[in-house]
Amino acid sequence: MKRVKLTVAYDGTAYHGWQFQPGQPTIEGILNWALEDLLHEDTEVIGASRTDTGVHALGNVCVFDTESRIPGEKFAAALNTRLPEDIRIMHSEECEPDFHPRYDAHDKIYEYRITRAKTMPPTKRLYATHIYYPLDVQKMRQAAAYLVGRHDFAAFCSAGSTVKDTVRTVLAVDVLEENEDIVIRVKGEGFLYNMVRIIAGTLINVGSGRMKPEAVKDAVLGASRELAGPTAPAQGLTLIEINYD
Amino acid sequence: MKRVKLTVAYDGTAYHGWQFQPGQPTIEGILNWALEDLLHEDTEVIGASRTDTGVHALGNVCVFDTESRIPGEKFAAALNTRLPEDIRIMHSEECEPDFHPRYDAHDKIYEYRITRAKTMPPTKRLYATHIYYPLDVQKMRQAAAYLVGRHDFAAFCSAGSTVKDTVRTVLAVDVLEENEDIVIRVKGEGFLYNMVRIIAGTLINVGSGRMKPEAVKDAVLGASRELAGPTAPAQGLTLIEINYD
Repeated sequence: MKRVKLTVAYDGTAYHGWQFQPGQPTIEGILNWALEDLLHEDTEVIGASRTDTGVHALGNVCVFDTESRIPGEKFAAALNTRLPEDIRIMHSEECEPDFHPRYDAHDKIYEYRITRAKTMPPTKRLYATHIYYPLDVQKMRQAAAYLVGRHDFAAFCSAGSTVKDTVRTVLAVDVLEENEDIVIRVKGEGFLYNMVRIIAGTLINVGSGRMKPEAVKDAVLGASRELAGPTAPAQGLTLIEINYD
Repeated sequence: MKRVKLTVAYDGTAYHGWQFQPGQPTIEGILNWALEDLLHEDTEVIGASRTDTGVHALGNVCVFDTESRIPGEKFAAALNTRLPEDIRIMHSEECEPDFHPRYDAHDKIYEYRITRAKTMPPTKRLYATHIYYPLDVQKMRQAAAYLVGRHDFAAFCSAGSTVKDTVRTVLAVDVLEENEDIVIRVKGEGFLYNMVRIIAGTLINVGSGRMKPEAVKDAVLGASRELAGPTAPAQGLTLIEINYD
């Protein structure tokens, strides 16, 4: 028995998110199907991050256990021949048998992409959110600074969540400009449900002038959902990488 | 009666190219349908560039004539509400009644995008070609220089074409690096059928070492299709803009 670690990239457009749901196309469901097809063993993936419907990933991580004699590094190619083109195993390797992709993660990096243009360019529509009004990037950066650190992020957690401890540590929030795009790059030790999309929605409100940068500080201190901005649309979000010690 | 000029962007993934074909989804067909729905007039677009199946555009151009009193600049929004999200009118304006989008074009700019990675990132799969082996960018640039100028590009024209005069003027071929991507940017006064895709396929062969840079000079002088490289896949190609005097 060995444990294999997979680095998984996907275009989330066609999927109902990561987590298995009967009768729905999900990343986890497709990966388990491909493993069954390859190994004919009773094994399932354990994932690091349960991304939502329409959210993309360049580097989500999962593991599975197997009796197979296939070397760990060969699983990427063997699985990719069985997977649709919008899901790719970017890397595979054998890992420690007690390695856990979620609990052992040191930090995760997400990017939220905003395209500023009068009209949304069609080739970006699946990977960015369109904002046609002006955004003040300096104010967005000022607001972003209030999010960095160990805080109660209750204001940045969707109502549907059942977690009790809403304290999380955000290591960095960078607001970058790439031609007509703004990329909000968030690095954190862990995230609440919809937290990065609410951070994006809040920073968009600051950029447009609907919220003052200081209101983000108040949202962190007030710890109440209505103090933060709306949840930005899923398709702008990409899980870039998960780092381990 | 007035003539209106449209700047059209599209994700070509779902379409059988620009040109109308009965029973197939095409950009021209959808645009004509949207005009009919808006105007209830007998009018059709005249396009500048008949892009192939799977080829994208940021700025293709077309015109149509109308008796409508809608101001030229209002057509973009009026048509966008009737178009699918993968086709967008980026700009509309009234133009001279004798303006012709193809014959009056001074030059067109295309980009061919190559992604170098061990595994194709799924979010790029519709907009780039995957090359997993190393490419020598300096040699590609050396070869590209032989293409610039007024030459017989018969070696860079697909066999299916019926044009007799295969002399064209290429104004620039730049080989740019953007992180893991190589972008071949071609500016020309006019192009033969599949010419940019054959230029891309040829420069990829030079980059990989299958062809020497000087072989591109020989292909131009020899004017025979088998002297150039293969036709690179459609999805890497985007029509960036068409310039008028």
